[in-house]
Amino acid sequence: MENNLWQHVLQLRKQSPLVLNITNYVVMNNTANALLAIGASPIMAHAKSEVEDLVNISDSLVINIGTLDEYWEEAMILASRKANQLQKPWIVDPVGAGASSYRDSLLNKLIYLNPTVIRGNASEIIALAKVDKINTKGVDSTAQSDEAVEAAKILSQNCNSVVCISGATDIIVSGNRIIYLKNGHPMMTRVTGLGCSASAIIGAFIGSIENKMEAVVSAMCLIGIAGQLASEKSAGPGSLQLHLIDKLYNMTEEEFFIHLKLIE
Amino acid sequence: MENNLWQHVLQLRKQSPLVLNITNYVVMNNTANALLAIGASPIMAHAKSEVEDLVNISDSLVINIGTLDEYWEEAMILASRKANQLQKPWIVDPVGAGASSYRDSLLNKLIYLNPTVIRGNASEIIALAKVDKINTKGVDSTAQSDEAVEAAKILSQNCNSVVCISGATDIIVSGNRIIYLKNGHPMMTRVTGLGCSASAIIGAFIGSIENKMEAVVSAMCLIGIAGQLASEKSAGPGSLQLHLIDKLYNMTEEEFFIHLKLIE
Amino acid sequence: MENNLWQHVLQLRKQSPLVLNITNYVVMNNTANALLAIGASPIMAHAKSEVEDLVNISDSLVINIGTLDEYWEEAMILASRKANQLQKPWIVDPVGAGASSYRDSLLNKLIYLNPTVIRGNASEIIALAKVDKINTKGVDSTAQSDEAVEAAKILSQNCNSVVCISGATDIIVSGNRIIYLKNGHPMMTRVTGLGCSASAIIGAFIGSIENKMEAVVSAMCLIGIAGQLASEKSAGPGSLQLHLIDKLYNMTEEEFFIHLKLIE
Repeated sequence: MENNLWQHVLQLRKQSPLVLNITNYVVMNNTANALLAIGASPIMAHAKSEVEDLVNISDSLVINIGTLDEYWEEAMILASRKANQLQKPWIVDPVGAGASSYRDSLLNKLIYLNPTVIRGNASEIIALAKVDKINTKGVDSTAQSDEAVEAAKILSQNCNSVVCISGATDIIVSGNRIIYLKNGHPMMTRVTGLGCSASAIIGAFIGSIENKMEAVVSAMCLIGIAGQLASEKSAGPGSLQLHLIDKLYNMTEEEFFIHLKLIE
Repeated sequence: MENNLWQHVLQLRKQSPLVLNITNYVVMNNTANALLAIGASPIMAHAKSEVEDLVNISDSLVINIGTLDEYWEEAMILASRKANQLQKPWIVDPVGAGASSYRDSLLNKLIYLNPTVIRGNASEIIALAKVDKINTKGVDSTAQSDEAVEAAKILSQNCNSVVCISGATDIIVSGNRIIYLKNGHPMMTRVTGLGCSASAIIGAFIGSIENKMEAVVSAMCLIGIAGQLASEKSAGPGSLQLHLIDKLYNMTEEEFFIHLKLIE
Repeated sequence: MENNLWQHVLQLRKQSPLVLNITNYVVMNNTANALLAIGASPIMAHAKSEVEDLVNISDSLVINIGTLDEYWEEAMILASRKANQLQKPWIVDPVGAGASSYRDSLLNKLIYLNPTVIRGNASEIIALAKVDKINTKGVDSTAQSDEAVEAAKILSQNCNSVVCISGATDIIVSGNRIIYLKNGHPMMTRVTGLGCSASAIIGAFIGSIENKMEAVVSAMCLIGIAGQLASEKSAGPGSLQLHLIDKLYNMTEEEFFIHLKLIE
């Protein structure tokens, strides 16, 4: 797989997939800029009167529930149904899963529609599995990451989705296959919305690359390595944000393979 | 005209016009900062219960339909009607014209109200002309820029507006008069919302300068030169964003005239 | 009091309070990043279906009316009532008080609910006092800052709130006690939403520190000193934004006390 990852980055830059984002207010600017930096073309929209038309002209769809409300909920359902109908790939970012019953009720509807990819942190993936009536607290499951992997495996099978758990180690699960990525940097947790940017970047890769597991891995390697290199030259999370966008834009093949830490 | 352009920049800094922005979620922060950097005073608001009161206290109005929905549509119509009633200048940014029939239906209502200025890229200006039932595919019109200029001329006459087509070359059309600007840098296309910032900056200039054609030209020169200087010192589009705001803030008369590339 | 201020900064970093923000679109990204930089944990949300649940799991609440509309108004009232019911501290940022009667009608409802803290600039605090039927134009009150202090004193007593007037000199009023801070830099007025960031940071401190007056003073010292140090090394307001976030993240005790300008 490793040899294909950089080819996918180049293919994306060449194809410049059109990615429709129904996402949260906090990160819209960042995720649009992250998509532009890697060579994709973002559309940010949410009107119930147009989301289906926009799914139709897009290569993929990103649903991020961060600042959901009743109107946006309807738009998200309309768009993801349309994506399924047109067989276009889409990703759900279950921001804040478990924080309110309202949030979980929307997530229940979304995962019932079998998104191509689900990406969240460990606690969100565990909460999402509970939404899906999966009990992950197994007898031997003591660590949060173990519980999240168990949740991800079952979600992946139930929803026929690639599931990505992001964290100090990113874990990508497709059925029984698991890949671990050890890129990134602790300072990244002090910038809002880097998880959301990861989801948007995955959205671009699945709109361009046929093999969805490899698309997700390529996306997570790209942001992980860019974030790591950006953090190393930053005095704080303000500088990190701009260096990350710069690095997503100007990363070279050499930088990619020197820093890649992938374990299968 | 050239001699007046820098005077307009100085006049704007002195007057600090109050600019009401009903704009999209993606760029609100950037456009507010661009306005502050050039010396204007932004208000960002959209409540139907207050937009007319806010037009009343503002010097000009910016309508940007990027993340439109049914509520915002009503607020935009209320505000632009109020601007006309009070004879205050306003600008429309037709983001994504042609991407959905919903978007085009709102644009149809807005251009019917004869905005003082319309600014978009070539494909948006062409799509907008179609909304206005103008057929621009003339026999001799082979290039997109030629078609856009034809569209802009007819829009300018029909709506009594100054029309600005932004791109590698910015083209400003008022009736039969055309001005070309060749500032800017290709990296600017990899930052979200620089077109929206251009529209906001135009909004400030038309709120401060009597001659609307010169106001638009001054605005486009200012952001074009600032963007060019910012790009030249930036490793990527993350750095470009902050250097652009810095340069809008600290540009000197000497920098302005050394780099100005205006063709009438 | 001075000796406690840095201890409060350290306590906040250790406790990482969860801060629910119902805030404006323009500054959501900045305020979330400011909260992360000082060590707090932001939630940004507004759905009427979940704000009460989210108040329940949060340590404090920030209400900022910058881009209010009728839906958000309802969410703000639901959340602040819930905060009162659960005795959780909350802050109101009365952005644009006095600019429209709609804005003032919402503010009237909010101050009736006795927020723990109110923070605005001088004109907002004066407008807010008028909303509360307080006539501040006393015979001897010639300067705006004098009028604002008079308004703040009465608001503080009527609402049982700590009132913070931010400006070239920040003034914190609790009953008859007044503290003046002389940190900050003029360039900060050319960045959108630094007042909103101040309110969010106050929101974090009141969620972590028992003495509310000291919590507000600590917060204002932190952002004032960080903004001053960031401005001094910035070519313009674009650079200032990122240097401010970096400095909120990496400020040391030595920097804090060397630059502190507090007058009681």
